[in-house]
Amino acid sequence: MSSSQAIIGIDLGATNIKSLLMDKEGKILVSDKRPSLGNEGKEKVISQIISSIKTLQKEEVKLGISQFLGIGIGSPGPLNVEEGIIYQSPNIPGWQNVPLVRILEGKIHLPVFLENDANAAALGEWWKGAGKGFSYILLLTLGTGIGGGAIINGKVYRGARGCGMELGHMIIKEGGMICGCGARGCLEAYASATAVVKRAKAIIKQGHKSYLSQLIKDMDDLTCEDVFKAASKKDELALLIVEETARYLGTGIGNLLNIFNPDVVILAGGMVKAKEVLFNPVEKYTRLNCLKSCWEMVKIVPAKLGENSGAVGACATVLERKGII
Amino acid sequence: MSSSQAIIGIDLGATNIKSLLMDKEGKILVSDKRPSLGNEGKEKVISQIISSIKTLQKEEVKLGISQFLGIGIGSPGPLNVEEGIIYQSPNIPGWQNVPLVRILEGKIHLPVFLENDANAAALGEWWKGAGKGFSYILLLTLGTGIGGGAIINGKVYRGARGCGMELGHMIIKEGGMICGCGARGCLEAYASATAVVKRAKAIIKQGHKSYLSQLIKDMDDLTCEDVFKAASKKDELALLIVEETARYLGTGIGNLLNIFNPDVVILAGGMVKAKEVLFNPVEKYTRLNCLKSCWEMVKIVPAKLGENSGAVGACATVLERKGII
Repeated sequence: MSSSQAIIGIDLGATNIKSLLMDKEGKILVSDKRPSLGNEGKEKVISQIISSIKTLQKEEVKLGISQFLGIGIGSPGPLNVEEGIIYQSPNIPGWQNVPLVRILEGKIHLPVFLENDANAAALGEWWKGAGKGFSYILLLTLGTGIGGGAIINGKVYRGARGCGMELGHMIIKEGGMICGCGARGCLEAYASATAVVKRAKAIIKQGHKSYLSQLIKDMDDLTCEDVFKAASKKDELALLIVEETARYLGTGIGNLLNIFNPDVVILAGGMVKAKEVLFNPVEKYTRLNCLKSCWEMVKIVPAKLGENSGAVGACATVLERKGII
Repeated sequence: MSSSQAIIGIDLGATNIKSLLMDKEGKILVSDKRPSLGNEGKEKVISQIISSIKTLQKEEVKLGISQFLGIGIGSPGPLNVEEGIIYQSPNIPGWQNVPLVRILEGKIHLPVFLENDANAAALGEWWKGAGKGFSYILLLTLGTGIGGGAIINGKVYRGARGCGMELGHMIIKEGGMICGCGARGCLEAYASATAVVKRAKAIIKQGHKSYLSQLIKDMDDLTCEDVFKAASKKDELALLIVEETARYLGTGIGNLLNIFNPDVVILAGGMVKAKEVLFNPVEKYTRLNCLKSCWEMVKIVPAKLGENSGAVGACATVLERKGII
């Protein structure tokens, strides 16, 4: 095998750390996955990250790697990209203002680049996924919350102080439901996976019959994917919930089309597995809510990189920051 | 006077054509203003534009101008910047798909550059107004409708097909009031000058006492500036209307801070003359509706260029397109 340059990308999640060793062309060489162990505290998480990196680095000789270009880390915010500090991590006790880049660079002796997880996912999709070849890309992560990322002409859009693209906190219903951020009517409060589950539970508790109540024994175990699975099987109640979710998503995406006029909007997260069950009503409501000129030619598509999205994006982050892509 | 290069900028409005001759440094050398005469048809408007340009060009020798760099035109949309076509103009009968750039270049023999009026205003404010020195600038024009423009690192943000930044058509109240665009709940339907007047008339018709009803003889003559003037004089009803308008504006601007994380948001249009009567409640509601990280350090300010904003922006358009600024 010829010698080559490689990159390490790390998706730092609340539950797992997923790492990839990739070559510059985007081929996955080795992968590693291990628990974050956030409940054992900050130091433990950092040592898990380092172990994961070292495991990948061990393949250096076997793979004929001449150089590691750097390490990319995709992490939930709030964080400071330039200073390499993660201010807070919701599921890791004691994780406050951690200068992760400095810590890792001290231990690994390679350049380390930090990126917001949604930005990293967007960059990864632009590099090797559903956004390939486009100049104006938006990505929405539909999970516990709703995150956003934009890639404009191959660069991550960050704003003046690196805290832009908080698309989940776009208010689409002034005076509406309270959101985790304290404001009312945010898209996240209506269309995140959490909001879908909340809506489903409320309706089922009202006594409406649904395949959903048969699907799970304990209401507490209900997940967003259950709701979309039931909708795929034409369960009426689940279809109603999906339709309502799509209405809110279509409002938010319509706004984003009117604002950014993108080539493509990529949706990521568990619920996009439902394919047309989600995308058909989302397209319908988006079209209703935006100007014809911004609707024409835009594509609304699911993320392509799936499970690897975060780690591929973290690898792409290294290449973007070094000006290679 | 030393010889110098000059630019002509034209603000093509429904009522008036305002033109400026400026030097490259942004000094106004001569100005011209004449009626658009839109009711006399397309040809008449074009001949008014040409007369205005020729009037300014006559000063060439007197001002020691060595070269005209080009002509910039700021116009309401929808239009195509690259092809130089204005698709429609609401107040000019028969104005359909007019290739204005080609027509003018044929008559004047100078390069002509077309720009959406809100983009031109934003560019002008960045060049010589309230946005000077900032990298991430948003501008909202609060008039009959609400327009938007963004200048990112000195360049107009246009999106994939040049139809982005339709900030007035951001839905802030899903299922809310119908907007001219056909969607429901757009910012424009709640916070444009037109919306303010509509709200004021509705309340006054309900029989509420207000200084406003004394201010004007005929309710039909009520303007947005009347409402803000009355609010400045502490008229309770007018203050209520301003507060409500600011609540909607604060929702929209809060969204834009969360999305773009700009350095500065510039508000333009007649109502900004009311200064703190408008800006105090707008700031209050914006802060309530956006994340702390995006609120900190941002400035919300009135446009500085006033009446000349469009024409200065049209001059700046020439310099931007030629890569001079």
